[in-house]
Amino acid sequence: MQRKVWADVDCPMARAVDLIGEWGSLLILREAFAGVRRFDDFQERLDMSRNLLTARLKKLVAGGVLARQPIAENAKRLEYILTPMGEDLLATIVALRQWGDRWLFAPQPHPADMVDAVDGSVLERIEVRSSKGRAVALADVQLKPNRKRRRSA
Amino acid sequence: MQRKVWADVDCPMARAVDLIGEWGSLLILREAFAGVRRFDDFQERLDMSRNLLTARLKKLVAGGVLARQPIAENAKRLEYILTPMGEDLLATIVALRQWGDRWLFAPQPHPADMVDAVDGSVLERIEVRSSKGRAVALADVQLKPNRKRRRSA
Repeated sequence: MQRKVWADVDCPMARAVDLIGEWGSLLILREAFAGVRRFDDFQERLDMSRNLLTARLKKLVAGGVLARQPIAENAKRLEYILTPMGEDLLATIVALRQWGDRWLFAPQPHPADMVDAVDGSVLERIEVRSSKGRAVALADVQLKPNRKRRRSA
Repeated sequence: MQRKVWADVDCPMARAVDLIGEWGSLLILREAFAGVRRFDDFQERLDMSRNLLTARLKKLVAGGVLARQPIAENAKRLEYILTPMGEDLLATIVALRQWGDRWLFAPQPHPADMVDAVDGSVLERIEVRSSKGRAVALADVQLKPNRKRRRSA
């Protein structure tokens, strides 16, 4: 009955949720995507205890999603920036926001559209497609062991 | 300095995170996407306290992501199924899993590919594009107030 699609033993979903799915982590990432970098700014905007914020930031840094760097050359104070790994969460964040736009405001319209500052058009709705371009529904998603992994194991 | 992209006052990200971003909720959704429906199965697979699981399921049902239904006609026991709103999280879940595949296994290859059971090809990498087809990076994403909302306000 259960499709063994998402629940494989060393599951990337489980690892991802472990890294960014704790309470507070997604909110921190939302703020980081909005350009927030400093501890005090995270703290003020999220109204999170300093202990909890410290713990969450530490984990995101240890996991490689955020990096700590001096706020200026030779400065002692540090700020938190998204690493390339962190910025690569963009598609996930945009997909989640679009989902919120569709479902969490009705019957009101959603407050704002995400647009491409370069060409001025609204972002395309993120959808799941096969490499051949077919729109894929949940029931059609299957897992196939990665051959590279089997060779290297 | 801060881009007011994700942090607007009635932010769909904030609402989405509030609904599905609590500890445990994403794990429950992962299991639901894997086909798990029954309380005891969630409980066994997630090793989560019954109280916490009950609270999380209640919130997901109240928010419209899951629905409770009898396990069979006239049965008293209930199971939890993804609603259309819940299934619509597919793109978010696939984007998150692909991110995990890229970043959380290196230098090992990721364990498995998601494939389309119908045409047999691997799922396309989910990317952020403008309506005109341009690949959009984080720095190019801007928010534009929804005109429909302004008219209706």
